[in-house]
Amino acid sequence: MTDPTPADTLARTVKVLAFDIFGTVVDWHGSIVREVRALYPDVDADAFALAWRAGYQPAMARVMRGEQGWTLIDALHRQILDEILPRFGLAHLGEEERAHLNRTWHRLDAWADSVEGLTRLKARFTITSLSNGNIGLLTNMAKRAGLPWDCVLSAEVFRAYKPDPATYLGVARVFDLQPAQVMLVAAHHDDLAGARACGLRTAYVERPLEFGAAHPKDVSPQPGNDLHAASIADLARQLGC
Amino acid sequence: MTDPTPADTLARTVKVLAFDIFGTVVDWHGSIVREVRALYPDVDADAFALAWRAGYQPAMARVMRGEQGWTLIDALHRQILDEILPRFGLAHLGEEERAHLNRTWHRLDAWADSVEGLTRLKARFTITSLSNGNIGLLTNMAKRAGLPWDCVLSAEVFRAYKPDPATYLGVARVFDLQPAQVMLVAAHHDDLAGARACGLRTAYVERPLEFGAAHPKDVSPQPGNDLHAASIADLARQLGC
Repeated sequence: MTDPTPADTLARTVKVLAFDIFGTVVDWHGSIVREVRALYPDVDADAFALAWRAGYQPAMARVMRGEQGWTLIDALHRQILDEILPRFGLAHLGEEERAHLNRTWHRLDAWADSVEGLTRLKARFTITSLSNGNIGLLTNMAKRAGLPWDCVLSAEVFRAYKPDPATYLGVARVFDLQPAQVMLVAAHHDDLAGARACGLRTAYVERPLEFGAAHPKDVSPQPGNDLHAASIADLARQLGC
Repeated sequence: MTDPTPADTLARTVKVLAFDIFGTVVDWHGSIVREVRALYPDVDADAFALAWRAGYQPAMARVMRGEQGWTLIDALHRQILDEILPRFGLAHLGEEERAHLNRTWHRLDAWADSVEGLTRLKARFTITSLSNGNIGLLTNMAKRAGLPWDCVLSAEVFRAYKPDPATYLGVARVFDLQPAQVMLVAAHHDDLAGARACGLRTAYVERPLEFGAAHPKDVSPQPGNDLHAASIADLARQLGC
């Protein structure tokens, strides 16, 4: 018997699949590019999307270091937006336009295979989000995109952002399970490493276009993950769904 | 213009419907009676269900007074169960039997109209649970009974039980809405009064058999609620769904 655990063993022992959202289930780059292009055709929408996302980890890090009190991602997205707007010639945007643009994160489109893959996985597993996005954002997104969650878990529930162990272990606690009965599904190796360190099972999902076609991502397998899937639909296939 | 607000105005202004669960969406009495009868035919299952439920408010009150730290409902249900078992000649039950019986609360059946009513309401509103039950319990229940929540909100998220204002106002905060854009749907006037005091809209749902056919409940309209419905399906009709 070798590590990682075979898929059929995983399918028997894992009860809950917890999904990272931004980049894994939904296409944040493509969705923001489409909205920005439609609203502000003169803006470099690709650079705008990347700049907005680039502010995300530093903003969460400030909160986790205690430099800023607990803050929902909606508010962090807005702080970053206000910072980057001048750089893109949009300093003149008023409150209503900024609020509307900020809600782009509630309107992200799912990757083409997400709804089908999740629906198949839901027949066998409990499927939940585990995102740093806030509950309202995740619920609005799911309703619009048709993501069939059994449950919407968020950093907001645990008052900690991933990769804080409180988030991964929180999922196990919520469902009264051992960590090894929970699998994190994500397109990001740092997120998966955080989950693995807490004893969760992990599945990597390839999303080579997460940062747009102009910035292809290395999606080659890395050691340590239990499963490596080309998509969520492929993950469903590997888990016998 | 008179109070309460007309249904067509409510349907335009309300965005989120938050549902009480035990008694409102699911039939706790009938479900527990059925499980207990099947497992322990000599026990008075009606009295058992009522005794178990009767311990619920006092147990939450102990937590809210600070006599006991924050406790999930699964654990409170178990405390009450351990207390009442001797009274019903079941003091001999072992850990596994007690744990299985305690999970009855995860397996409650929906009232006959709940799934249809919720499905219709979901097409127009965001529908969420707002229960003192914990997230795992509510998610397992929804998966088994087919309750199509957009989101599972619980006292667990707000670390306060209803009727603490933190729960009702928490729903509005989660969705970045005014309290009057959220409606609580419940079969209990004290729950609705708590929500109303926070500025939420309220809908009473008649569940005359909540305590079983032998203990019919007064479901006559009381002043102050915006809507009074014979069922969740009737609520959907009144809200134009």
